Amino acid sequence: MRKATYGAAVSLDGFLAGPDEALDWLLWSDDAKRISAESWRGVDTILMGRKTYEFAAKSGGGGGGSSKLTTYIFSRKMTEAPDGAELVGEDAAAFVRGLKQQPGGDIIVMGGGELGAALIDGGVVDEIGLNVHPILLGGGVPMFPPMARRAELRLIEARPIERGCVFLRYAAGSS
Amino acid sequence: MRKATYGAAVSLDGFLAGPDEALDWLLWSDDAKRISAESWRGVDTILMGRKTYEFAAKSGGGGGGSSKLTTYIFSRKMTEAPDGAELVGEDAAAFVRGLKQQPGGDIIVMGGGELGAALIDGGVVDEIGLNVHPILLGGGVPMFPPMARRAELRLIEARPIERGCVFLRYAAGSS
Repeated sequence: MRKATYGAAVSLDGFLAGPDEALDWLLWSDDAKRISAESWRGVDTILMGRKTYEFAAKSGGGGGGSSKLTTYIFSRKMTEAPDGAELVGEDAAAFVRGLKQQPGGDIIVMGGGELGAALIDGGVVDEIGLNVHPILLGGGVPMFPPMARRAELRLIEARPIERGCVFLRYAAGSS
Repeated sequence: MRKATYGAAVSLDGFLAGPDEALDWLLWSDDAKRISAESWRGVDTILMGRKTYEFAAKSGGGGGGSSKLTTYIFSRKMTEAPDGAELVGEDAAAFVRGLKQQPGGDIIVMGGGELGAALIDGGVVDEIGLNVHPILLGGGVPMFPPMARRAELRLIEARPIERGCVFLRYAAGSS
């Protein structure tokens, strides 16, 4: 089955972005580059929430754009899909459960936190990856917003990488 | 100078305790025992907030008790110090700054989060230790409540330990 991974760079206090969406604390390195390349291998589908899409579009990143990737934007507010992306208004976990039954490559859930938490709650996330940065931001956009229930995980990998970061990788479900 | 360490076992989403103060997810092991013993070496002073004290007392742990340790309870509400502990009503960071100037052993800040965050904000915490457990609790008592400003850290150590936990240790201040 297609693997769905929720991965992000986070501060030690668990924020994807600081107050005012600050991302100036992110540390790039050869290690981070390798981990990023590895996490995109075999991926043909990107999932993101509306806020993440708007943030990415504003930052010049944009969702979609690559013809090899299918991008789904999850929103109950948007009425029209942006160029190069498909709009999903239905329940996110149910949609992803269906998507995983279809043939295709692996799936990446882009930060935003709300979508990630909804998909973890819905039991459709297979792996969680974190590049933990050596900083406390004090506030911002959490990688893990409140969830309705616990989720047990199984540690796959934990290792220090360049610039004081730590890469953690977990599989959903206990061992 | 006396070293002040803020250390705790946390879920991957950063909670010291789950909803309803649940601690049933904590995983004990020989590795955790060694790390705990190591972190108490040279310590003669414990700091905790009122809520943590009350939780510990309720759980039968209690603050103080050992004649070798001095326990300070930080509270503006309490009027009388519990047996075996001293009550601090003044600004926590200012108090700890003074404490560190006095002769004595190392200092441990017990969880509760609010006290830890106040002391990190005040720049008086030297080390932060986390035993990251392989679970998302979804809510509860955060190790790092909102803070007024960023705190850069320097990674000292990151290693997987038994039962899928990861031990992370940081020094305050960037490298």
